[in-house]
Amino acid sequence: MQNKKLRIIPLGGLGEVGKNMMAYEFNDQILVVDVGLMFPDNDMLGVDYIIPDFEYLYDKSHKVSGIIITHGHEDHIGAIQHVLTQLPVPVFGTPLTLGLVEVKLARNGMASKADLRQVQAGEIVQIGPFKVEFFHVSHSIPDAVGLAISTPAGMVVHTGDYKFDQTPVDNWPTDYAKLAELSRRGVDLLLSDSTNSERPGWTPSERVIDPALDDVFENAKGRIIIATFASLISRMQQVADAAVRNKRKLAFVGTSMVDNAKMARKLGYLKVPDDTLVAIDNALNLPDGQVVLMCTGSQGEPSSIIGRLSAGTNRQFDLKPGDTVVLSSHPIPGNEEAVSKTINRMLRIGANVIYDSIASVHVSGHASQEEQKLMLNLVRPKYFMPIHGELRQLMRHAELARQVGIPNERVFVAENGQVIEMIDGVVQLGERIPGGYVFVEGGTVGEMDRALLKEREQLARSGIMLVNLGIDKYSNRLLEEPEIITRGFVSAEEAETLIPAVRKRVVDVIHNGGFNVEKDIVDVVRSFVFNETKRRPLVFVTMTKV
Amino acid sequence: MQNKKLRIIPLGGLGEVGKNMMAYEFNDQILVVDVGLMFPDNDMLGVDYIIPDFEYLYDKSHKVSGIIITHGHEDHIGAIQHVLTQLPVPVFGTPLTLGLVEVKLARNGMASKADLRQVQAGEIVQIGPFKVEFFHVSHSIPDAVGLAISTPAGMVVHTGDYKFDQTPVDNWPTDYAKLAELSRRGVDLLLSDSTNSERPGWTPSERVIDPALDDVFENAKGRIIIATFASLISRMQQVADAAVRNKRKLAFVGTSMVDNAKMARKLGYLKVPDDTLVAIDNALNLPDGQVVLMCTGSQGEPSSIIGRLSAGTNRQFDLKPGDTVVLSSHPIPGNEEAVSKTINRMLRIGANVIYDSIASVHVSGHASQEEQKLMLNLVRPKYFMPIHGELRQLMRHAELARQVGIPNERVFVAENGQVIEMIDGVVQLGERIPGGYVFVEGGTVGEMDRALLKEREQLARSGIMLVNLGIDKYSNRLLEEPEIITRGFVSAEEAETLIPAVRKRVVDVIHNGGFNVEKDIVDVVRSFVFNETKRRPLVFVTMTKV
Repeated sequence: MQNKKLRIIPLGGLGEVGKNMMAYEFNDQILVVDVGLMFPDNDMLGVDYIIPDFEYLYDKSHKVSGIIITHGHEDHIGAIQHVLTQLPVPVFGTPLTLGLVEVKLARNGMASKADLRQVQAGEIVQIGPFKVEFFHVSHSIPDAVGLAISTPAGMVVHTGDYKFDQTPVDNWPTDYAKLAELSRRGVDLLLSDSTNSERPGWTPSERVIDPALDDVFENAKGRIIIATFASLISRMQQVADAAVRNKRKLAFVGTSMVDNAKMARKLGYLKVPDDTLVAIDNALNLPDGQVVLMCTGSQGEPSSIIGRLSAGTNRQFDLKPGDTVVLSSHPIPGNEEAVSKTINRMLRIGANVIYDSIASVHVSGHASQEEQKLMLNLVRPKYFMPIHGELRQLMRHAELARQVGIPNERVFVAENGQVIEMIDGVVQLGERIPGGYVFVEGGTVGEMDRALLKEREQLARSGIMLVNLGIDKYSNRLLEEPEIITRGFVSAEEAETLIPAVRKRVVDVIHNGGFNVEKDIVDVVRSFVFNETKRRPLVFVTMTKV
Repeated sequence: MQNKKLRIIPLGGLGEVGKNMMAYEFNDQILVVDVGLMFPDNDMLGVDYIIPDFEYLYDKSHKVSGIIITHGHEDHIGAIQHVLTQLPVPVFGTPLTLGLVEVKLARNGMASKADLRQVQAGEIVQIGPFKVEFFHVSHSIPDAVGLAISTPAGMVVHTGDYKFDQTPVDNWPTDYAKLAELSRRGVDLLLSDSTNSERPGWTPSERVIDPALDDVFENAKGRIIIATFASLISRMQQVADAAVRNKRKLAFVGTSMVDNAKMARKLGYLKVPDDTLVAIDNALNLPDGQVVLMCTGSQGEPSSIIGRLSAGTNRQFDLKPGDTVVLSSHPIPGNEEAVSKTINRMLRIGANVIYDSIASVHVSGHASQEEQKLMLNLVRPKYFMPIHGELRQLMRHAELARQVGIPNERVFVAENGQVIEMIDGVVQLGERIPGGYVFVEGGTVGEMDRALLKEREQLARSGIMLVNLGIDKYSNRLLEEPEIITRGFVSAEEAETLIPAVRKRVVDVIHNGGFNVEKDIVDVVRSFVFNETKRRPLVFVTMTKV
């Protein structure tokens, strides 16, 4: 009877937004769904990005039948190069999703090293012991899918990111008929997107952006610069359409934007007439009133095009008065301050800046409360498990499920590492496996840890003070004046009086001798410096005894 | 004719939220309005808080006639102890405002050292050459005022923080009649609160919180813990009223909360029956269902009561399953992430957490767009200058002023340090004086600067590596193995292989000799370390030559 147990192993995608990754394990075979990355919190100093902790799968690569990617956004594909290095298994996805995976792999020197297997929404694919039905969902990128995963243990519906957009940009709404069919057949467990579970009502259609964009195009005298995510293909289409309607030339700026747009056009998901699309060099030579540029940086990232334009450090061109900048996204939680500073800087340069509280230049790609309830009522699952969100969103989504009538004991709120088991259609909590963050910084993956971040925070809080001594080991006397270096501790001006005073205390300690001069110096310097400045720099003493 | 020039000198309160401070200068006499503090941005590492840069006033203390405080919130009184040290001048305010100033001064060892002069809303006070009419405004604290400041140059209306709450908690709405009267007499320049200029509509009355609180009280089985700002006296009143209605005992927790509540009660602005109010020690001995605690920490500050409860580090009592926590505030921009983490931690402990997206447990104390337009139409100023907000909010407020018919050339958007002049009722841009941030950290004020923050950021990003050498000055040979210390750079595990490799390169450089061995070592270590780890720690070389 062991055969009838399905283990659902959340490796990412619960407890925080982004870095979505889920493993399904049945009969010793594993299916992975999504491999996302997430951007670091403000207190994760120096970290570039975070990927799921999939250590659980490290020694099981021979047992992994495949990886399914539900759609092409970074928080679902961003860790693909890291995962494929450990788990060289087939990757299943729709054409656009695989196209964007290809772009990502190429950028990481892994082009054509992956076994990519194309699937169309509506198809059924057997992957190891998992019968997977792919069904279309509308989201802010074309070709997104949800999954119905059947094993002898029961049927699980995994929505992925979705909204019930009735008038999506690609005219392809969520597949209600399929959801109804699955419901009729009997869904044991629903895993559904919780991102917007704190938002009442219904998320507006992507279409509401069109008139807002037209308004911008009609009123802008100079250049228009529109910032969004590089993988927001639907937004690219809307900007391209507005460019055609308003007779402007469109240029994509920045590698990721250019590469993704090229792939989406090649595959037919992004339709831009040849005579509308121009290269950025050409666009910059056209009259300002005839161009629209599309680039990244809507989250205020300092290294993005918008970040550099706002700081005046972009190489190819500068922001100037008369430019209209549209931030076509909503700040991801934690980025509000960076976005706000970026807006202020651009306003200071004299640009007209349009963002979501001024005009409807962005809508969410995720279902709000009424849509989440509709999903629950359409699918009518026996059990429910909210996914994709922080604990606060998962808990709200659980509350919605109770509101539509799912008994409390059939709702499972889990965080990453908490295994959920389904045995013959009955769901229960399983074991806890280690889970958490894997930090990626520069070229290294996972070498960073919390202890290291703690050290950085200490360094950042009050800086450092180095005391270097040369001492005669026979007489215990100083060979020369103590050398004192500080960084991030006091201003140059303040140092002028403080350093000599510290030096005097160090000399006194050495003069007085003692059992542990090094430790004594650290203690004396620390307390002296704290009394003088109320700050606590890290104090290091190095000593050469000869 | 020099006599007819009024200079309006924004020292804080433009360009960022918080740290409000404005100087009015007429005929060589100065009047200061508000002396607020602001909390540091996420990238201001180690900074405790920020106060306005009032260097302009340093050598002018004999010319400053007084300081007016419009109300008792931290972003208007928070820098009072710093300002009074430099400018020992009379402080004017309403009874509650001065009461809260007193509490603040006492906490900073300056009790009874200030010349506090009580004013009632409706009174007219001559302060040097400034005739100041104080008029009542509703805000989320009682006894808030706006100012009409008249000099021979013309009349300025300075709203302070306000909303047009028709049913305020203290039943004292904004003084419409006075605003209308000022309008009739002719207002030359209006300075108005821009905080909510991106919010359409009308800010709800504070009253909407009452039913939401009752709902919480009716449903909570265990303790109720309500977090808000220590100076949000109106909220204290609402919680006290709900406690009486629902037969719970109320205890304030934390020094600032206890002191402020005590002062507000003493002055009659906070009405709590004696048998409802209990000390925290007593409250903790009562059955859980009979108590409500009020404390700080609604912004997720780690050192606040809520911060410590969420982290399990509060000394007096712990959070436990069954507790209901209400966050009665909205995250200040930049605090969203900290608030979210705090909510998640408390949910994880098993507490029921109520915040503003779940129930109406908070409303803003600031006017929204329709109220801002009403203020403009009531006052009908000749000129308009938005205050209290970041540049993005000031610009939106300026746009609203144009919408109600103020010509563009009569709207002045300025940032801190940009002087505005009014000569015979005509307003124009004046000079720019140095302005900016003054950082307060530990015991030091203003010693911090941007360069220092830059150094801290470097330290925080990749940590440090120290290389200490003892060298024989005749043979240029090492006296002992190079000592290598790192912090915040690599994990202990990674260091095990990296440090010996670095040491080898250092030895090679010394062996090869050269013109500038110290610089060579830094270069070689930097590039080796970057190749190995893709990180760039700060590298220090110290050398003792004997």
